[in-house]
Amino acid sequence: MAVPITSVNPVAIKPQTFWFMRTHLIALFGAFALQHVVAETLPSWKDTATKKAIIEFVGKVTKDGGSDFVPPAERIAVFDNDGTLWSEQPAYFQALFVFDRNKALAPEHPEWKEKEPFASVLKGDMKGVAAGGKEGLMQLLAATHTGMTTEEFTQAATEWINTAKHPKSGKPYTEMIFQPMLELLGYLRENGFKTYIVSGGGIEFMRPWVEKTYGIPPEQVVGSYGKLKYEVRDGKPVLIKLPEIGLVDDHEGKPVGIQTFIGRRPIAAFGNSDGDKEMLEWPPAGSGARFGLIVHHDDADREWAYDRESHVGKLDKALDEAKEKGWTVVSMKNDWSVIYPEKK
Amino acid sequence: MAVPITSVNPVAIKPQTFWFMRTHLIALFGAFALQHVVAETLPSWKDTATKKAIIEFVGKVTKDGGSDFVPPAERIAVFDNDGTLWSEQPAYFQALFVFDRNKALAPEHPEWKEKEPFASVLKGDMKGVAAGGKEGLMQLLAATHTGMTTEEFTQAATEWINTAKHPKSGKPYTEMIFQPMLELLGYLRENGFKTYIVSGGGIEFMRPWVEKTYGIPPEQVVGSYGKLKYEVRDGKPVLIKLPEIGLVDDHEGKPVGIQTFIGRRPIAAFGNSDGDKEMLEWPPAGSGARFGLIVHHDDADREWAYDRESHVGKLDKALDEAKEKGWTVVSMKNDWSVIYPEKK
Repeated sequence: MAVPITSVNPVAIKPQTFWFMRTHLIALFGAFALQHVVAETLPSWKDTATKKAIIEFVGKVTKDGGSDFVPPAERIAVFDNDGTLWSEQPAYFQALFVFDRNKALAPEHPEWKEKEPFASVLKGDMKGVAAGGKEGLMQLLAATHTGMTTEEFTQAATEWINTAKHPKSGKPYTEMIFQPMLELLGYLRENGFKTYIVSGGGIEFMRPWVEKTYGIPPEQVVGSYGKLKYEVRDGKPVLIKLPEIGLVDDHEGKPVGIQTFIGRRPIAAFGNSDGDKEMLEWPPAGSGARFGLIVHHDDADREWAYDRESHVGKLDKALDEAKEKGWTVVSMKNDWSVIYPEKK
Repeated sequence: MAVPITSVNPVAIKPQTFWFMRTHLIALFGAFALQHVVAETLPSWKDTATKKAIIEFVGKVTKDGGSDFVPPAERIAVFDNDGTLWSEQPAYFQALFVFDRNKALAPEHPEWKEKEPFASVLKGDMKGVAAGGKEGLMQLLAATHTGMTTEEFTQAATEWINTAKHPKSGKPYTEMIFQPMLELLGYLRENGFKTYIVSGGGIEFMRPWVEKTYGIPPEQVVGSYGKLKYEVRDGKPVLIKLPEIGLVDDHEGKPVGIQTFIGRRPIAAFGNSDGDKEMLEWPPAGSGARFGLIVHHDDADREWAYDRESHVGKLDKALDEAKEKGWTVVSMKNDWSVIYPEKK
């Protein structure tokens, strides 16, 4: 940090005075800066054991010469998205995108009015959609996520995220992100960490908006993906999204995605459900200081409360394992002073 | 850059003198720094049109307010590896690793003495290996690259790269990298580019050594890869390398790899063979200033000379297309003052 000596005209003061002022300005400014940093670290996290555990871990791995020091290049932190960085109720937001997209595409497919699972989506009959099971969902996914170029899909996802509103809160989805987690992402990056998303969500669905929303660039997103086919159309190369799965980046798919895309073992993992269990187990299987954290949705007033019995973001085995393994469990109710960012 | 005012004791000089010195030190230091930078840009590149084209492109996309300005986050540059960043004769270096590795593993497989293609490898009979065709090569790859954990493979690749020597030059393989390309990587990074490898070579083969060798971290390597299987062994999660292909990152596989791993369209691509053609075509299919470069191996004295008829790194269609598309073609003989780094 440059000391603001140029704000004083040195011609007007004696050199001794100048030197004295400069020295004291450094000391004063340094003390102020330190105090400021401590007060401002994770401001939406209450002063609980959870916040303390995070700060202790970061202090440990960044302390040059300390026994737990980790060089910056190896400070990889991985974050689940649904339920960890943003809400996931009443359904994964990408599922809501699928339904909205089916409705938007319906005029081009008049046969959908009579054909399941599309007919149920168009009628807003979620029970009917659920009755179609996994196969029905795959049909909906295929109809909305494949058969177009990657650029066409990016445009559709971007338009939706910029305009769609959540059915309960009425907010844009990108305002239903967790303010304390935003601060945690920033805090880790300030401490030399490279922050990644490792989500069961679609990689091409997330990439268009994560940089603006979380400060995570598209190339630091690992997610589920389908195969792509290279084609030349009108002399221009394009990539077509195929209805063939490349990776389901959930459960044991998460360590696979991490190894394939990043090729380094993270030292910290952040999740919220059983789908994150294997991702949370992956860093500790390496050596050195490690950190695991689970966001526990226990705040029905400000967000939602669910865990062992939930149809989305089920948190059961991983909650038991957190105790055994010493992972930090965040109580949204008790550890966070706010949930969503204040509207600017 | 801080001006070294603390090297002068300000107590001993008048404030006017101090101020005068400080101002002039800034001016002097600035001028020196600029001259130094210009002289030192790409020092192993001769002052030819090739060097000029590179510097012009970088100047254009980094000029704030200019019509071709590209924000740093979007300055993605992709480099092929074999034949672009290091040599690839008499065979891809990874193929030489496969042969060495087969020999190293032979004591555990006494049956290989009688079984092709292994028997030919053990006898050093390359014609016999070639006779096995693609299927034989896949068997050799499977035997050396699959059926072990990712950590075991990383260890084998690391040991080999640290000890093996090239059959002709006698040098370690990591000394057969191109000094001018190293400088180019550094020059682009100094100008805010993120440099990626996008290679037909194996992703897990490259990742252990590219950071030390090229300054490219493992997470910025895109390559061919096999599927991985998550398993828990002795209570510890591991990933097993399977003999099933995830992606062949060559020809049209390169844009697929770029989109899947990076999710942004590069603005510059660097290759040397027909396998890089689709990668070179991919940036221009977007909008804005773009740069394509082909390393032409035309220096039989200092490296190798080959192109249209070569069994590795065949450069035929992409060489014709370079003219049409305005890609820059490097003559190793005429554009580079040195090939390999000088031994320290």
